Amino acid sequence: MTAEHVGGNPLRDPQDRRLPRIAGPCGLVLFGVTGDLSRKKVMPAIYDLASRGLLPPGFSLVGYARRDWADEDFAQVVHDSVKQYARTEFREEVWEQLAEGFRFVQGDFSDDVAFDTLRQTILDLDRVRGTRGNHAFYLSIPPKFFPDVIGQLKEHGLADPGRDSWRRVVVEKPFGSDLKSAQALNATIHEVFPPESVFRIDHYLGKETVQNILAMRFANAMFEPIWNSNYVDHVQITMAEDIGIGGRAGYYDGIGAARDVIQNHLLQLMALIAMEEPTSFEADNLRLEKQKVLSSVVLPRRLDLHTARGQYLEGWAGGEKVIGYKQEQDIPQDSTTETFAAIKLEIENRRWAGVPFYLRHGKRLGRRVTEVAVVFKRAPHLPFTETATEELTQNALVIRVQPDEGITIRFGSKVPGSAMEIRDVNMDFAYGGSFTESSPEAYERLILDVLLGDPPLFPQHVEVELSWKILDPIVQYWAKHGQPDTYDSGTWGPESADKMLARDGRTWRRP
Amino acid sequence: MTAEHVGGNPLRDPQDRRLPRIAGPCGLVLFGVTGDLSRKKVMPAIYDLASRGLLPPGFSLVGYARRDWADEDFAQVVHDSVKQYARTEFREEVWEQLAEGFRFVQGDFSDDVAFDTLRQTILDLDRVRGTRGNHAFYLSIPPKFFPDVIGQLKEHGLADPGRDSWRRVVVEKPFGSDLKSAQALNATIHEVFPPESVFRIDHYLGKETVQNILAMRFANAMFEPIWNSNYVDHVQITMAEDIGIGGRAGYYDGIGAARDVIQNHLLQLMALIAMEEPTSFEADNLRLEKQKVLSSVVLPRRLDLHTARGQYLEGWAGGEKVIGYKQEQDIPQDSTTETFAAIKLEIENRRWAGVPFYLRHGKRLGRRVTEVAVVFKRAPHLPFTETATEELTQNALVIRVQPDEGITIRFGSKVPGSAMEIRDVNMDFAYGGSFTESSPEAYERLILDVLLGDPPLFPQHVEVELSWKILDPIVQYWAKHGQPDTYDSGTWGPESADKMLARDGRTWRRP
Repeated sequence: MTAEHVGGNPLRDPQDRRLPRIAGPCGLVLFGVTGDLSRKKVMPAIYDLASRGLLPPGFSLVGYARRDWADEDFAQVVHDSVKQYARTEFREEVWEQLAEGFRFVQGDFSDDVAFDTLRQTILDLDRVRGTRGNHAFYLSIPPKFFPDVIGQLKEHGLADPGRDSWRRVVVEKPFGSDLKSAQALNATIHEVFPPESVFRIDHYLGKETVQNILAMRFANAMFEPIWNSNYVDHVQITMAEDIGIGGRAGYYDGIGAARDVIQNHLLQLMALIAMEEPTSFEADNLRLEKQKVLSSVVLPRRLDLHTARGQYLEGWAGGEKVIGYKQEQDIPQDSTTETFAAIKLEIENRRWAGVPFYLRHGKRLGRRVTEVAVVFKRAPHLPFTETATEELTQNALVIRVQPDEGITIRFGSKVPGSAMEIRDVNMDFAYGGSFTESSPEAYERLILDVLLGDPPLFPQHVEVELSWKILDPIVQYWAKHGQPDTYDSGTWGPESADKMLARDGRTWRRP
Repeated sequence: MTAEHVGGNPLRDPQDRRLPRIAGPCGLVLFGVTGDLSRKKVMPAIYDLASRGLLPPGFSLVGYARRDWADEDFAQVVHDSVKQYARTEFREEVWEQLAEGFRFVQGDFSDDVAFDTLRQTILDLDRVRGTRGNHAFYLSIPPKFFPDVIGQLKEHGLADPGRDSWRRVVVEKPFGSDLKSAQALNATIHEVFPPESVFRIDHYLGKETVQNILAMRFANAMFEPIWNSNYVDHVQITMAEDIGIGGRAGYYDGIGAARDVIQNHLLQLMALIAMEEPTSFEADNLRLEKQKVLSSVVLPRRLDLHTARGQYLEGWAGGEKVIGYKQEQDIPQDSTTETFAAIKLEIENRRWAGVPFYLRHGKRLGRRVTEVAVVFKRAPHLPFTETATEELTQNALVIRVQPDEGITIRFGSKVPGSAMEIRDVNMDFAYGGSFTESSPEAYERLILDVLLGDPPLFPQHVEVELSWKILDPIVQYWAKHGQPDTYDSGTWGPESADKMLARDGRTWRRP
């Protein structure tokens, strides 16, 4: 019996939902241990899983990097990261048991000797820690190194699980920078690892609020009947950041907002909002429905009118004066990279035809917030006076992905008083107020799923490629049309974004 | 121009909803000035209206009672009531202007001389206060005196408005005790006052939360599509009181819970929940839709199985030992009066066929609460495991009429954690949190509407009679079947009420 069968499907807990999902014997090999992501997300998540008792007793973590470290140095790095970033309390006994499984292998990504050492280290761990040949390789490294590492894994027999064991590879976005590069990347990976062993992390899918979209839509009776073009006017999906690019010029410039966020997080959110009910939440069924949505997307013909992009200028953020994109370190003065992107999509199927989906993402906007707003049509008739409903807008169901996680319904209510005056009010559900259970970090959930071999929350190559198919024409159009518009830091993007919605008689939410 | 035209329809503010609706020149004659209702509700509401600037400067209030009082004594009674019960702050200047219009007439209800004095008093007021012949007669007295008072009003020319003036009569429930007595009462009143001059107060209709049912249903797009038998499983309308009958044995015994509350408040609530969208909120259109609902009600054939009644025994309420109904003062030991009544109704029309409406009211229940719960069917299919949805019940939209006024939607949400476990959560809208405007008391709204001649919130004789038609067979059935069941004070009614729902595979809410 493999771990897949032990762990089962995370969305279809086969036995008892109160039975914790605990990973079977296994280990994780982490490439890129000195990176931000490793230190801030992966290492703390591993500790938190251990602290919650969800890792096997012999769990092992192998760090791989060029640094001249001993196992203890690596352990110290993990220790510092856990102390600073872990969600759960630091407990010495948890730490000590976990740290016993730490190993470090020194080498660069083309170092044959080092990969031999890695192989030997894993074999040793199987022997002394009982990891039974089950190992996940977490590539927390720039994609340009993927071919090297994956080739080495193959070369040194590390990708081959042998009988009754598993080997998995975990990759983080960017999954390419367009359809062609994504296809090449997927080909590289799949040459070595079969699709079911490849776990692409889109950490948005690990968020409770995102998974709750499935619960909300399909466990309830009252939302699905109005979840279609008869009642929905349009959908707005927003991921707004208040920060700029920080020290990430090297990664960010030339990529930009659309490829960095819309291609993955926002299109995945859109797919979950728009998809039909899956036959079950098995990975295949879930992916099938997401793929159907992504395959049905059509772009507006006039990309000039129905997309918008911008680059932040200096301005104010959080009460502080901040610099513009072109003043950031290492950004070329002629950079055309957009830090704000807004696009309009339509989904051509029976449920959604005629309902625009507006997706936007930007850095240095007014506030950090991610939300999905399903905005409903007005009632077909309002048997009130015009003045009574003057302050009434459209009903909306807003899924607050982060921060302040929850769901809000905006609807019209009578204002207290002796006249009939109707005004928008909010009905609110907050995670914090409703559950004593605290939400695991997305990375806890996703790493556990990797170790359990539970694939539903990981987009497969087909989805990745479909998403690039949607985005490529837009990015290419922009590339041909010079500089993006500009917007002051701390505002809600360029004027062109507002005009883009105004053309459709709509306005962006100011969440 | 009469005040009707000045005031306009309260639900269809003709000009500007921010223009306050102010009563034109007029006065009110109050019969039964020493009663609880007058002192606790009517007098404070009049002050509050004055305080809000909604009464005309020359507004006059004439008290009529047997007491040997001077105008000053009456003013003192009003003063004490206002000080104790008014919602708005006591301001000397408001009080003084208001009190100048106070008059008192001494007499009993068959006293010809006193009614002559009343007539003279009104004429004087028209002259010195400018009330212009516009007067409302508020009968805050037991219905058995209605024929006397109404006869006297006619006899002494008080019911006749003359040219360009109006006379109105205000009556409080009970509007009879069965269809026959209601018809007789209506005949008595209509012999003297035309239907449009008769204002029957059902104070529930003056409540903000009840009026908001109309706003919620008809100003929004997202509720009406699911407001029918395709999606609604059943509706529960509850008015629970924690108090007993207090000193009201004389009124209450022989009347009971069904006639005291279900016949009026709960059937009116049901009509507002179930009715079709009216052409407008003009009184005639609104009443038409309510009448259509009430006309479509059918009773279950087996009244033994689908109704329940109970009488409270001693028990605990609010941490205090309380006595049973039969221990209350002046209650006969063989009283069969029910203090708890629950009935099941169906509405035979296209929208509601097959959806039971369960109405219940009781005294000395666990908590004081009035609510309407629209309980939805389960989703036709749940693509989750059984254990995942084990703690999921049915979606519900609950209108909290009082206290804690607002609306709650109960729906299923994912419990934070790495398995898919779905549990009921509440999404909440609270009046208190959403509006800075404080809610006027129901009596303020309704008395102002009487003075403005705005009829939509007052049930007409047709509705009253239709409601008795629904209730009569139940009450008659109970009368033939001896003693009601019993229940301990502080519980949620007799066991038979729970069984009644259990038969249908449902349970009462414990709000």
